[in-house]
Amino acid sequence: MRQIIFLLVLFFTFPNFAQTDAEVIKKIYNTSLSNGKSYEWLDYLSNQIGGRLSGSLNAERAVEWTKEELEKLGLDKVWLQPVMVPKWVRGTPEFAFIETAPGETINVNICALGGSVATPALGIKANVIEVQSIEELKTLGKEKIEDKIVFFNRPMDETLINTFRSYGGSVDQRSGAKEAVKYGAIATIVRSMNLRLDDFPHTGAMSYRDTPVNQRIPSAAISTNDAELLSSLLKLDSTIKFYFKQNCKKLKDVLSYNVIGEITGSQFPKEYIVVGGHLDSWDLGDGAHDDGAGCMQSMDVLRLLKITGIKPKRTIRVVLFMNEENGLRGGKKYAEEAKRKGENHIFALESDSGGFTPRGFSFDCSDSQFNQVLSWKSLFEPYLVHYFVKGGSGADIGPLKNENIVLAGLRPDSQRYFDYHHASTDTFDAINKRELELGAAAMTALVYLYDKYGVIPIKNKQ
Amino acid sequence: MRQIIFLLVLFFTFPNFAQTDAEVIKKIYNTSLSNGKSYEWLDYLSNQIGGRLSGSLNAERAVEWTKEELEKLGLDKVWLQPVMVPKWVRGTPEFAFIETAPGETINVNICALGGSVATPALGIKANVIEVQSIEELKTLGKEKIEDKIVFFNRPMDETLINTFRSYGGSVDQRSGAKEAVKYGAIATIVRSMNLRLDDFPHTGAMSYRDTPVNQRIPSAAISTNDAELLSSLLKLDSTIKFYFKQNCKKLKDVLSYNVIGEITGSQFPKEYIVVGGHLDSWDLGDGAHDDGAGCMQSMDVLRLLKITGIKPKRTIRVVLFMNEENGLRGGKKYAEEAKRKGENHIFALESDSGGFTPRGFSFDCSDSQFNQVLSWKSLFEPYLVHYFVKGGSGADIGPLKNENIVLAGLRPDSQRYFDYHHASTDTFDAINKRELELGAAAMTALVYLYDKYGVIPIKNKQ
Repeated sequence: MRQIIFLLVLFFTFPNFAQTDAEVIKKIYNTSLSNGKSYEWLDYLSNQIGGRLSGSLNAERAVEWTKEELEKLGLDKVWLQPVMVPKWVRGTPEFAFIETAPGETINVNICALGGSVATPALGIKANVIEVQSIEELKTLGKEKIEDKIVFFNRPMDETLINTFRSYGGSVDQRSGAKEAVKYGAIATIVRSMNLRLDDFPHTGAMSYRDTPVNQRIPSAAISTNDAELLSSLLKLDSTIKFYFKQNCKKLKDVLSYNVIGEITGSQFPKEYIVVGGHLDSWDLGDGAHDDGAGCMQSMDVLRLLKITGIKPKRTIRVVLFMNEENGLRGGKKYAEEAKRKGENHIFALESDSGGFTPRGFSFDCSDSQFNQVLSWKSLFEPYLVHYFVKGGSGADIGPLKNENIVLAGLRPDSQRYFDYHHASTDTFDAINKRELELGAAAMTALVYLYDKYGVIPIKNKQ
Repeated sequence: MRQIIFLLVLFFTFPNFAQTDAEVIKKIYNTSLSNGKSYEWLDYLSNQIGGRLSGSLNAERAVEWTKEELEKLGLDKVWLQPVMVPKWVRGTPEFAFIETAPGETINVNICALGGSVATPALGIKANVIEVQSIEELKTLGKEKIEDKIVFFNRPMDETLINTFRSYGGSVDQRSGAKEAVKYGAIATIVRSMNLRLDDFPHTGAMSYRDTPVNQRIPSAAISTNDAELLSSLLKLDSTIKFYFKQNCKKLKDVLSYNVIGEITGSQFPKEYIVVGGHLDSWDLGDGAHDDGAGCMQSMDVLRLLKITGIKPKRTIRVVLFMNEENGLRGGKKYAEEAKRKGENHIFALESDSGGFTPRGFSFDCSDSQFNQVLSWKSLFEPYLVHYFVKGGSGADIGPLKNENIVLAGLRPDSQRYFDYHHASTDTFDAINKRELELGAAAMTALVYLYDKYGVIPIKNKQ
């Protein structure tokens, strides 16, 4: 009888006693869906702070605010990790039109590409040569390109199911300026990386690589509707002109921060698990999907672990990386410091593909490590998380790569992502609360499993 | 040599020669994503026609227009199937407020539930009793309910992953009037079936069952925000009053139609495959997701079969059912006629769960039939369609049920659905083109497989 009482006491004292993984994960999901904080946080980040390009005042506001919110969670440690970041400013709003005849103009929607130089103060007006690819420049040669604006107009491939693959297949055009200039082009206009036809230009980083500073030509993105318009007008009359003006510029690097919070592990405090997203965003929208969503989900992972009563064995860190969009300085700095301190990172998970319904995860790891993941697959099926693949993870955690660590990326449904990506449409109203919370829950469940089992070959798993 | 030439001729004459199922399905997806018509059609149906409740002029416009569009596709046969449908009209906009003290009022957002009677011309004002369930009425008894408005306020369960299950767990409240009246209630107000907090009331059918006509009490839905408000005010002061006015009414049945198009089978014309959705919608929004999406996808299934060069062996029909929302008369009529004519229906697929990213299909069939489906599962994996379950199909095709037929329902992502369902928010801007087209492609692929292999036990499959 006394034994029974003892067992009963034990049972009620340790409510997690003998909970199966399925039960713990159910609790994580229930808590995220009924008492999640990611949506409320993202409302604040999007609507009270807004777009937060590296080096901007808004980026600093985001650093301060997320640090304060993490401090409220009662984590074991919250700190800022200094990092120097590039600072590029857009300047006054860009302006562009197509001139179909002298004095006959049609205004179009453009935005400077991130990192581009300005046009001359009065803008640039020139004939346009449309191309589908960087390779096509070579075929056309200097004769057809010199003194013209090169118009890169290859659409994203709409037949690919994974829209990130379509993006990967088109985004080289954004840095076409460095090639176009070799044939005498005076500027480039790039069709926005957007699968739908609309009026919003999408920015994003472009690079001049080693093009000498005095040979850099201005580059802007044009909305997909206006790209279609320009293309159709060019077919009617190849002598029409394009005018645009932008006064963006690159300033000196400035000091910024990665924001880090930590629950120290109870058994293996020197094994580190990282979950994160990037805190900076482009400036046109509010960075709600890219990557406010991933940051707020990552913060909620630590909060969900705490409020569901999970006491991690290993040290769990949330890292809000600065400067993914135009430099990756935060990701590099974090990895550099981790290496310098000899911190043993065993698992890192990034959410940087939007706040949509989670479909699964991708993993950058060995085959045996991937087999361990596959053994957990059925735990995610009740939550319609089916997609486990070997592949990429996330840009910010990439620099942590070594032969032991497992890197992973949350893979949400990707169909809507490029409607918002890097555009003024990336605002809080495009976020669905439940979808965001399901992502936070899926991430927490995966972190829970890695914390419990560690990164070991599946054959040794207990 | 002549043989080789013959084979070459054969190869180029019959481009489908030796195409694998995977190749055909790839072609279907590519065509839907690059040359689909469902989105353009749905734009017209939503924005040029709009909400189309059974018996309304808009419902007749939708019948005419879809018939015309099907006729343009060059199908073998297009026709209208007459069916008598109920006609309920909302009347002038409803009006409601909470009276916290004489003359001190707060306006709230309500809408009459479909099928409800009107309030008296001057409206109803009474005290409110909040309940969480129909069962609770019994506990409270006549004493606490008589002469009051019963306020059903049980929210949808936010922790369920499948939101249709949450809906199923709450929707009984919509028909709570028939029970509340037994305890002397004079009206019911029902929390909208909506998982998020917003200002939009959601309508939907309610039923008085066998309640005598002179004892029927008016029922309205209230927005989730206003339900929260009313509940919190009642906690402070249970004597506050609720006022509402609605002048909806039920008219006589009117003639309407199912719209049907057919590609006649080349080998087994007397085996019928049906794909469809319901053409009627509630009146508050434009019925874009419910069920314009399913109808336009179903029309595109036949179009995609044609333009990808698939010549069905069996007869494929698209059926746009009338009156799913408040009567199911179209579904019943179609099944009745099929039975009367002895038409052998082997497979029916309905899309009536919104135009979101398709996650899979549910099947109402035997175990051996389900095994056949599972053998096709890997064909859908490249398209991230993973979810194949035994379960329901669709309301309109339900009446076709017999021991031989396989009934199926498209299962899109369900997280956003109840943000729009039966509310004024169900408009075209909530539709994503790619998600809609992926659904049409998944449906076409499944119809292609059933046409090719028929409904046979997997062990006999060639």
